[in-house]
Amino acid sequence: MLSPTSNPSAIILLSGGMDSCVSAAEAIARHGKDRVALLHAGYGQRTQSRERRAFTEIADFYSVPADRRLIVQLDHFHAIGGSALTDQSIAVPENQLHAPASSSTRAGASSSEIPVTYVPFRNAHFLSVAVSWAEAVGAHEIYIGAVAEDSSGYPDCRPEYYRAFQNVIREGTRPETKIDIVTPVIELKKNQIIRRGVDLGAPLHLTWSCYQNDDLACGVCDSCLLRLKAFEEAGIPDPIPYRRATAVR
Amino acid sequence: MLSPTSNPSAIILLSGGMDSCVSAAEAIARHGKDRVALLHAGYGQRTQSRERRAFTEIADFYSVPADRRLIVQLDHFHAIGGSALTDQSIAVPENQLHAPASSSTRAGASSSEIPVTYVPFRNAHFLSVAVSWAEAVGAHEIYIGAVAEDSSGYPDCRPEYYRAFQNVIREGTRPETKIDIVTPVIELKKNQIIRRGVDLGAPLHLTWSCYQNDDLACGVCDSCLLRLKAFEEAGIPDPIPYRRATAVR
Repeated sequence: MLSPTSNPSAIILLSGGMDSCVSAAEAIARHGKDRVALLHAGYGQRTQSRERRAFTEIADFYSVPADRRLIVQLDHFHAIGGSALTDQSIAVPENQLHAPASSSTRAGASSSEIPVTYVPFRNAHFLSVAVSWAEAVGAHEIYIGAVAEDSSGYPDCRPEYYRAFQNVIREGTRPETKIDIVTPVIELKKNQIIRRGVDLGAPLHLTWSCYQNDDLACGVCDSCLLRLKAFEEAGIPDPIPYRRATAVR
Repeated sequence: MLSPTSNPSAIILLSGGMDSCVSAAEAIARHGKDRVALLHAGYGQRTQSRERRAFTEIADFYSVPADRRLIVQLDHFHAIGGSALTDQSIAVPENQLHAPASSSTRAGASSSEIPVTYVPFRNAHFLSVAVSWAEAVGAHEIYIGAVAEDSSGYPDCRPEYYRAFQNVIREGTRPETKIDIVTPVIELKKNQIIRRGVDLGAPLHLTWSCYQNDDLACGVCDSCLLRLKAFEEAGIPDPIPYRRATAVR
């Protein structure tokens, strides 16, 4: 429990991936590293322990103290299943870069555009924990590294979704509570996120993106492919090693 | 994990209290007991084990099979704190029946109207689990026993809140997913909920409302006071025993 004397003004959802790392760098640039708190949620995903390590290493990089870190474990996602990330019987697709929909609106989307790595309604769980924590400690911003277009095409990564959730926060908290969701990278291309991260001195070398391995990134899942392509477009070498990167570079 | 052959059409959030029990009875009357699934969330509240027992006894009463029951444990509420229900250092008020605000709108509410038993943004966590489960198994309705006016005055129990959350579901799930939140008792007085429960044959004798005891209901917390008053108004004896009921009856 945070003591009343410590008073973070921003909660950062930090999965340990590239997008959340750069969002954290943005939050820290705006709030100062002494005013942020870091939230990490495990949900029984395949690479859970590796992502948690990335979270811890990024938190250490920014010297965020222990009482400003909250790690939660959402074990029910395993029981619920319905995603290749939480159900080992559904394979993570390889060498299939997800083609983003031409429109990011729901009307333009069809079932087949949502990949099997979509975890049903996952981000609502993360935001809910962040809002509860923010309300309890008086923080007024929540940073989340959602990316709308240049990403895997998940419905809960689009600006409309965050606008809708913002209303739920307004309606479902104390009248005096004011909490805004901030999505600093939502409209950026992945290669722009990398460049922004480099500008901000974000520790991209500590991030983890791979959906299926926890030792050496596979280089062939959707998330690795997006990351490799983005570093190539940014003209910057990806600082992490890959198991099978040559074929896709 | 539910097998694909079982296919509930409704998920019922069942805390084990009176309002959720009557909501479950409504859902079962509409969907049939073979088409519902029951969801219970523990969140480190004082009476967690007693509420879980009520959930199990109500589920047994309706002969809901084990693969249609999901019990989740949201331990992070204890770390987050900020409520008398999850933080033992904040006392549960006694003999203070919460006075509902004259208006249920946010504009009419002030800080002091939200009791210390409010758990920051709690219902969003419950709804998120319910939506994830519903989307994974193809259920299209979620029942929740929120009560707006004649209750403790929590912001996340008002119709506006559920309308806002409905938008989040629409924006944050697969395009083909259609899930509606159903709040069958939200506009009812507590005594009407009791009468409706009796009409539906709901097992009110198995419910648990007390905020602070897990053996014999205290009879003096806000939740016990509301319950006792409602049974008195309904002209029906409360089927559960109390430790200190005479003073408030």
